[in-house]
Amino acid sequence: MSAAPELLLTYRGRVVPEWVDYNGHLRDAFYLLIFSLATDELMNLIGLDEAGRQASGNSLFTLECHLNYLHEVKQDTEVTVQTQVLGLDGKRLHIYHSLHREGSDEAVAANEQMLLHVDMAGPRSAPFGPALLARLTALRQAHQPLGLPRYAGRRIGLPT
Amino acid sequence: MSAAPELLLTYRGRVVPEWVDYNGHLRDAFYLLIFSLATDELMNLIGLDEAGRQASGNSLFTLECHLNYLHEVKQDTEVTVQTQVLGLDGKRLHIYHSLHREGSDEAVAANEQMLLHVDMAGPRSAPFGPALLARLTALRQAHQPLGLPRYAGRRIGLPT
Repeated sequence: MSAAPELLLTYRGRVVPEWVDYNGHLRDAFYLLIFSLATDELMNLIGLDEAGRQASGNSLFTLECHLNYLHEVKQDTEVTVQTQVLGLDGKRLHIYHSLHREGSDEAVAANEQMLLHVDMAGPRSAPFGPALLARLTALRQAHQPLGLPRYAGRRIGLPT
Repeated sequence: MSAAPELLLTYRGRVVPEWVDYNGHLRDAFYLLIFSLATDELMNLIGLDEAGRQASGNSLFTLECHLNYLHEVKQDTEVTVQTQVLGLDGKRLHIYHSLHREGSDEAVAANEQMLLHVDMAGPRSAPFGPALLARLTALRQAHQPLGLPRYAGRRIGLPT
């Protein structure tokens, strides 16, 4: 996959019949499957593809995520995911995915994720190696001018 | 399914091969599929099963959710979901699911959800009818003494 000018393009595909509910709309959990596949592609882009995981013994685990459902998506819709690196520390990576109908800038869903770098031999948390840390830092710096996206940092609650 | 003494039991099942990743662990998106199926069961319990949806023309849509991944879950593990009603207003329902290995009180994942009651003819948001509102209010009152669960109301961010 190729990278968009600013954000990363991490998924392109079609909403398949297995992913829709009784209404013919993408079921909530399958929005997250698409975002999870987008995280896989991000891992490919930063060198944590299958070969990289086997060579390093390291991977990324999801600690926590937040989803906002903004529009319904029907079966057979072509969709893409754009990804922004929001931040990182020595072993954690904070990212934001947005789901779009192919060719549209409007997000139909948003997904914030906190990922942990792990040594799979434990599994236990492990600091990013120097090469990976350099790649992630470069991405964060490239994305920093974009600012915090609309649905990042949200807390769920009823209006009071 | 039968209700636990306090919380609702909304899912009981086994982690099937289609849900695990390259490590043999439940993939992040399929935790949410289990929680989504638990919400379906909650809908059954409050009268929004398929017959109730067709009779009323109403359903619940997910607006937003938050997941915390606490422990890995291997293929073939028997799991259950317990559900707490945290709050509601005229058309929104705020719930909290926790995922457990069968027979264990320790949560392996938590999922907070905000659901919207909709008239499917729009679809547009719609107030709960009197019977549904009474059922939900009774559940909220029964669950209120349990207090706010550990992973409710969280915001994602790196420690500063």
